[in-house]
Amino acid sequence: MSDACGGTTDEADSADEHDADAGTGTTTCGATTDGGTAAEAAETDAGSTGSSACGASSSGASDSDSTSACGGGASSDTEEKVEATVDDFDADPGRLVAVGLGPGHAEGMTARAKSSLADAEHIVGYTTYIDLIPDEITEQADELYDTPMCGEVSRTEEAIDRALAGHDVAIVGSGDPNVYALAGLALEILESKGATASMVDFEVVPGVPAAQSCGARLGAPLVNDSVSVSLSDHLTPMEEIESRLHAVAGEGFTITIYNPWSRKRRENWETACEILREHRPDDTPVGIVHGAGRDDEAVEITTLGELESYGETDLVDMTTTVVVGNEDTYVWDGRMVTPRGYETKYDY
Amino acid sequence: MSDACGGTTDEADSADEHDADAGTGTTTCGATTDGGTAAEAAETDAGSTGSSACGASSSGASDSDSTSACGGGASSDTEEKVEATVDDFDADPGRLVAVGLGPGHAEGMTARAKSSLADAEHIVGYTTYIDLIPDEITEQADELYDTPMCGEVSRTEEAIDRALAGHDVAIVGSGDPNVYALAGLALEILESKGATASMVDFEVVPGVPAAQSCGARLGAPLVNDSVSVSLSDHLTPMEEIESRLHAVAGEGFTITIYNPWSRKRRENWETACEILREHRPDDTPVGIVHGAGRDDEAVEITTLGELESYGETDLVDMTTTVVVGNEDTYVWDGRMVTPRGYETKYDY
Repeated sequence: MSDACGGTTDEADSADEHDADAGTGTTTCGATTDGGTAAEAAETDAGSTGSSACGASSSGASDSDSTSACGGGASSDTEEKVEATVDDFDADPGRLVAVGLGPGHAEGMTARAKSSLADAEHIVGYTTYIDLIPDEITEQADELYDTPMCGEVSRTEEAIDRALAGHDVAIVGSGDPNVYALAGLALEILESKGATASMVDFEVVPGVPAAQSCGARLGAPLVNDSVSVSLSDHLTPMEEIESRLHAVAGEGFTITIYNPWSRKRRENWETACEILREHRPDDTPVGIVHGAGRDDEAVEITTLGELESYGETDLVDMTTTVVVGNEDTYVWDGRMVTPRGYETKYDY
Repeated sequence: MSDACGGTTDEADSADEHDADAGTGTTTCGATTDGGTAAEAAETDAGSTGSSACGASSSGASDSDSTSACGGGASSDTEEKVEATVDDFDADPGRLVAVGLGPGHAEGMTARAKSSLADAEHIVGYTTYIDLIPDEITEQADELYDTPMCGEVSRTEEAIDRALAGHDVAIVGSGDPNVYALAGLALEILESKGATASMVDFEVVPGVPAAQSCGARLGAPLVNDSVSVSLSDHLTPMEEIESRLHAVAGEGFTITIYNPWSRKRRENWETACEILREHRPDDTPVGIVHGAGRDDEAVEITTLGELESYGETDLVDMTTTVVVGNEDTYVWDGRMVTPRGYETKYDY
């Protein structure tokens, strides 16, 4: 099978994960830009033990290989702050579109996503996602602005400021902009600036979410009522996550788990596995898809009883999506299958 | 906004809806084919009050406007039955791919969906979905096999039989093949025939589901943990649906409702609205997207307190998707916004 899934990374949590790698100290996170309209200094408040080093780069489209080094740039602050307001811009605003790239390879993009990017003068996004966009599109753009794995608030603000300054801007992410992603943040920041969504003709271009990409990779595990839960407690208290898991695990939902594990929150993984096992038998099929569409892609179908032990393996990290079957889900010929219920009505 | 959402129709329920229009009698539902390998007579068991008239047509790709009349064709039976088994085919099997078309217009298809269809010798699907595929792709296919709004079991079997007979076959649906759709049914029927998924290199090509297409149309209503529930009790008992709604409405999930209403099950809609109101305030924002991507597309943002009254309007039927906000969801500038939680950590 050539399918790939991705778009699994809730970036707030990627910063989290990145932190763990970077240690527990606080380092400066700045942004450098050439040609940007309102590059703000930024530092991500990415968790309780410190913030990660990060940077931003902006470049004309001719410089398509624009990854940045950490810590460069202007002044820093303890939190990402939105500073410019709508009154700071004199120009007629341009347009702002939030584009979902889908699974993480050009093949998974919709035609509309491609044309939206082709129409944009500036394309803004996390470096990894910018790199996913086909060269023929990025080469057409007047500017690319990308930052590494942190700073989604300042990056979103950057996109908005560029639109308010008169440019047609696309802000991109993998998966769908409505799934643990930036569509909401863009609207929140627009409001905080005293702007409106209408002012920049704000549009969301949907993409294939990780649940669907990974579901396809696993077979047909999500064919009935289904739920998505993120295990990151960076932006949602763990008690709420636990309560949600209890509520849905006792019903017939299949459950897609985003952001399942990071070094800083092993406990969330353990707790989630325990809650699921309280409600579902140990032989419930579970699909694990790691690093989909990347060189280290790996897929495994296991059981709920074995799931927790995968937390300490390379298979489960922030780039992994986990699909937990319901009581009817079974494994056949290497695929997970959740019946829709046809077998109760039809003879086959 | 030019977005469109679709892919909202659970076909088992479309047949349901179609029934209501067709009356309560039982009429013959047959299939005619020219050039097909194993067209089965079929009658949909679409509900308790009768079955709808339906037919199937198969044509060479040169006859691209192939809609069929009802009731034509061969013998009928009281239920759709899978008849041919793997032993009935001598050829080396071809490939079978289940392709999600996304929102319901060519713009919403992924590049991979297009190339998968272009590679297929036969394309099989519900007439409305076949019509969504760009002409340059359908014209390349050796054969199109389409049936109107019923018979998804026999149509899926038709696709499988053609693959087992040696053809490369794509079976298509709107939205994503894992969302109330045919990926699971294809695997179930393969198994029932004594075939395997590997034998036909079975693959699922994901598409943008209706929840995401409609979420994009509404703004950013689905940015946090979310659940999909179908209100059709054709394949799931209503008690289970009610139990699921109670479980999730009491938690912080946004809720996407598929198949919200049909004439035959007004009560399900009323019951669902009552359950949601037991758990959430009347001023909870609710987005309604009807007939997305079609001529009669309509979008409205209302409140939970008003939702039930829409059941008797043209806005809510089987082609409608409803998105119910959580306790944090608000309406701003004509958009629904569900905060991800950044506002608890960042200053903007």
